[in-house]
Amino acid sequence: MVEEKSFQDYYPEENSHCYGCGSLNEKGLHIKSYWDGEESVAHLMPKPYHIATPGFVYGGLIASLIDCHGVGTAAAATCRAEGRAMDEEPRLRFVTASLKVDYIHPTPLGVQLEARGKVKEVGKLKVSVSVEVSAKGTVCARGEVIAVRMPESMKQK
Amino acid sequence: MVEEKSFQDYYPEENSHCYGCGSLNEKGLHIKSYWDGEESVAHLMPKPYHIATPGFVYGGLIASLIDCHGVGTAAAATCRAEGRAMDEEPRLRFVTASLKVDYIHPTPLGVQLEARGKVKEVGKLKVSVSVEVSAKGTVCARGEVIAVRMPESMKQK
Repeated sequence: MVEEKSFQDYYPEENSHCYGCGSLNEKGLHIKSYWDGEESVAHLMPKPYHIATPGFVYGGLIASLIDCHGVGTAAAATCRAEGRAMDEEPRLRFVTASLKVDYIHPTPLGVQLEARGKVKEVGKLKVSVSVEVSAKGTVCARGEVIAVRMPESMKQK
Repeated sequence: MVEEKSFQDYYPEENSHCYGCGSLNEKGLHIKSYWDGEESVAHLMPKPYHIATPGFVYGGLIASLIDCHGVGTAAAATCRAEGRAMDEEPRLRFVTASLKVDYIHPTPLGVQLEARGKVKEVGKLKVSVSVEVSAKGTVCARGEVIAVRMPESMKQK
C-alpha cells in the first residue's frame, strides 16, 4: 500500500522549508493537507508549549494552521481546476496575500485539531479558501486565506 | 537604572504562558511591547528556522507578532483610557477575537522585525488595534486585531 502524499509533499524541494508545513524544516510543524471529497483536511496536534493560557492553544498556531492549509489547498485546487497532475512541472507553490482569522471558541490544548478547507474561488490572480478549525467537533476558529503564486523573487535559485 | 517593563510583563502570572509573548513560556517567542508616544512598538528577531522559503520569514510568525502585539496594546490602551496603572489589580488580560493580516512584501529573514501598533478604538466590549510590521524600514505586513477581555472560562483557577 502506497501512502497518500499530502499537498505539501508535492511542493518543489527548494521551497519545502516552511516552518508551518515544509517537509524539510526539522523544527517545523509539518502540517499536511489532503483532499476529502470537495473539502481539504489537515490535522495538527499542538505541543504542550503552544499555549495561550494554561489549557488553551495560542492563536498564532491556529493562524499558522489556517495559513498553511489554505495555501496548500490553493495549489491543489488550481491543479484540479486546470486538470493538472500535482507532480507536473513546474510544481505550483502559493504564498499568502491575506489571512483573516475569527476566533470563536477557546481552543483546548491536548486535542488534535482538524482544519477543513473549502475552495471559494480559483482565479488566475488569486485563490480564495475558507478554513474551519475544530477540536473534538467544536468549531474554534474560522479563517479566510487569499493565496497568490509565489513571486519569482522568493524562489530559491 | 530600572529597566522598563513591557505590557506583557504586567499580565497576571497565571496567564503569562503564551507561546507568543508569555514570560513564563520557556520555548516561546517572548514578544514584548512598549509605548512609543501614541504608538506601541515591539521587536522580534526571527530564528533561522522561522522560514517560509529560504531567505524569507513564514507568515505564521508575522501573524503571531501582530496578534500578541495587538493584544498587549489593547490591555495597555485600556489602562491609558481608564487612567489606570498597569499593575492595578485585577490586571487586564485580553485575547484575540479577530485577526487580519495583509502580506505586502516578502519579509526577509535575518533582520529584526519591528511591529508598530496604533490604537483605533477602545470600547467596553472590544479594542481595535492596527499593526504594521516592517523590516529595515520596508513595510512587509499590515494587520488588524480585535481584542476582547479574556473570558472567565480561560482563566486559570
